[in-house]
Amino acid sequence: MKTLMEQLTKDQLAEVQRQIAIYSQGVHDIIPVEELELKVAKSIVENTPLKIKLGLDPSAPDVHLGHTVVLNKMRQFQENGHIIQLIIGDFTGKIGDPTGKSVARKQLTDEEVKHNAKTYFEQFAKVIDMEKVELHYNSKWLSELKFEDVIQLAGKITVARLMERDDFEERIAFGKPISLHEFFYPLMQGYDSVVLESDVELGGTDQHFNVLMGRHFQEKFRKEKQVALLMPLLEGLDGVEKMSKSKNNYIGIDESPQEMYGKSMSIPDELMIKYFELITDFTPDQIKTIKDDLETGVLHPRDAKMLLGKTIVKIYHGTEAAEKAEQHFITVFQQGSMPEEIPAIEWKGETVTSVINLLVDLQLLKSKSEARRMIENRGIKINGNKVEDSQFQINVTDGLIIQVGKRKFAKIRI
Amino acid sequence: MKTLMEQLTKDQLAEVQRQIAIYSQGVHDIIPVEELELKVAKSIVENTPLKIKLGLDPSAPDVHLGHTVVLNKMRQFQENGHIIQLIIGDFTGKIGDPTGKSVARKQLTDEEVKHNAKTYFEQFAKVIDMEKVELHYNSKWLSELKFEDVIQLAGKITVARLMERDDFEERIAFGKPISLHEFFYPLMQGYDSVVLESDVELGGTDQHFNVLMGRHFQEKFRKEKQVALLMPLLEGLDGVEKMSKSKNNYIGIDESPQEMYGKSMSIPDELMIKYFELITDFTPDQIKTIKDDLETGVLHPRDAKMLLGKTIVKIYHGTEAAEKAEQHFITVFQQGSMPEEIPAIEWKGETVTSVINLLVDLQLLKSKSEARRMIENRGIKINGNKVEDSQFQINVTDGLIIQVGKRKFAKIRI
Repeated sequence: MKTLMEQLTKDQLAEVQRQIAIYSQGVHDIIPVEELELKVAKSIVENTPLKIKLGLDPSAPDVHLGHTVVLNKMRQFQENGHIIQLIIGDFTGKIGDPTGKSVARKQLTDEEVKHNAKTYFEQFAKVIDMEKVELHYNSKWLSELKFEDVIQLAGKITVARLMERDDFEERIAFGKPISLHEFFYPLMQGYDSVVLESDVELGGTDQHFNVLMGRHFQEKFRKEKQVALLMPLLEGLDGVEKMSKSKNNYIGIDESPQEMYGKSMSIPDELMIKYFELITDFTPDQIKTIKDDLETGVLHPRDAKMLLGKTIVKIYHGTEAAEKAEQHFITVFQQGSMPEEIPAIEWKGETVTSVINLLVDLQLLKSKSEARRMIENRGIKINGNKVEDSQFQINVTDGLIIQVGKRKFAKIRI
Repeated sequence: MKTLMEQLTKDQLAEVQRQIAIYSQGVHDIIPVEELELKVAKSIVENTPLKIKLGLDPSAPDVHLGHTVVLNKMRQFQENGHIIQLIIGDFTGKIGDPTGKSVARKQLTDEEVKHNAKTYFEQFAKVIDMEKVELHYNSKWLSELKFEDVIQLAGKITVARLMERDDFEERIAFGKPISLHEFFYPLMQGYDSVVLESDVELGGTDQHFNVLMGRHFQEKFRKEKQVALLMPLLEGLDGVEKMSKSKNNYIGIDESPQEMYGKSMSIPDELMIKYFELITDFTPDQIKTIKDDLETGVLHPRDAKMLLGKTIVKIYHGTEAAEKAEQHFITVFQQGSMPEEIPAIEWKGETVTSVINLLVDLQLLKSKSEARRMIENRGIKINGNKVEDSQFQINVTDGLIIQVGKRKFAKIRI
């Protein structure tokens, strides 16, 4: 008997290969890629879309470029006719922290969950077509489970398997306590895939374990197993940590064109290509050209970064806003108002500090009161953006440009 | 301010001490004994009985002398006016084995649970006053828990704490899998104590971990903590393993007077005193006398064992039946029909074997067919009891007396 792949027409096979090439672009891992091929082939032969799952934490609805790595991948599936399943993990959110220890994990009300979901969706709409998305709240099925069902579910996985999760393993190694309820979060995520019969689940590499739980439980419940598609994590503006709101190293997709552009210019040079790959719609060929040109010196890193900044702004605010943001940057930093060579000053203080402290510690201004006055007079710019709040806390990163008045400039070196 | 113990009258204090002396008799451990003193004192001062909990597995309702170790202790509490809470763990029984691996742990129906519970109670009635007992089925509250409640419960204990349970620890050490649902059995037992507000929970030493779960969860739910009262495990007739039906080394409390007496006579000499302590109503003083007399040789071990056998039969069948059973034993084994000295034969075969094999292997009879014929002709007795089934499997223990026909005797040595 012929396998499904052998039964495909030449055109169908080409279409499978075309899609797989797109989905493979920039990914960290597809587990296993053969099953994704089969699923895509089946969807073509049977003319039925695949179900592409993404789980969302309802407690942190601010979307930044780090999230768009996965969203861009979702969009590619959507553009090929597949269905996106967005799961709001509201069941977990409604429980809060049963140990009562974490203030951060407070219990969310129905209204808060709904509001946060709405905030997500408005932002997601900039990347994917929300009209075609399936929305699910997992409390719908999880809150219906009784103790007996939970025991049946728990009977389908071993303690040893759960302890393999990196963070659990680490906490065990260091003797840090794990509350038993924490073992249930991966179970819930896996069970969501059982209920929704997902074909593919997307996540960052930090979701490796949880996404594989879907495969595990689908198999135990005798369903077709989903494929895990893991995307690399995008480092934030500091070039080290994963982009996140709590690290204050992010570019939010709701930020103004000027902020977006300014922040883009502070991305470390060595991360530029990764940003092009993961958060723009540049093709692999286009990216290769940029890379080659940077290596041969044909393209100046600053110009490449300006292209990146302009592209990012264009995606979220359109071509006109992108042009304006670029023009603003050129005016402030390149046309006369900024010297060719800005003196670099080494920063050895706290990573996050107030602008006032920064100005005084760098000896750009003599006293805190002087610094405060200068901010109030709108005489301080950081990466070309005016500082308007004297209480503003700033994440001090390498390459940050500080302007005091019209002519005094400094560039941070860390 | 005076403590409760200091406020007691002289009579009240004496009463506390009297009760504690009784409850301490033969126990392995009371955790902690100070709290039991306080609870008893409070019950006297406030004239309210304590709640004494015992959990029962509904799948194995055959009660043997091993169970009566705990039952006797319950009776002592009951005789002092406290209330016995019997919990039928039917919730677990109704779930069966979620991994589907264990055939033994099959799902019980409501009818089976009820039937098994009834069987327990009929047998328990021989030791405790069942009219005064509180009966509970834990499915009543456990089946009502929803996933959210389970997570709240699981949030109150750490994975590390659960892994301390001896059998879990051992399985982890040997790389044997533990299904996650198994972690819930100790939680359920603990939660039962929360719901029932138990003051004391009884169990064998093998229940050490599970009984302490009650204290743990009562504290987490801000209830008064129960005291754990742990009884030693009674070794079975083989003198090695815990008495249990599956090891076939037990004396069932429903067995006939003759069987009971005969089996009692096969208890190893060195365990006699432990049996007197744990399953008879002999006082510590009486037991000390027996012990001393055995040591000085005033009392022959055989006579001490006859007293034990008679006492056991008396408890479960009354004085008359006990006299008869003793008389039967004397007739068969002591009055002429049994020689003074029975030749001992060493047994190196399987612990459990068929009577036919035993007879042939010991060379008491020449062939299997001869052995079968002798059984059919009712010519074989073991410990004075006729063997009526040629398929009968026997647990070969040290001291077992086999009689072939009228005059041939052999005593097993292991």
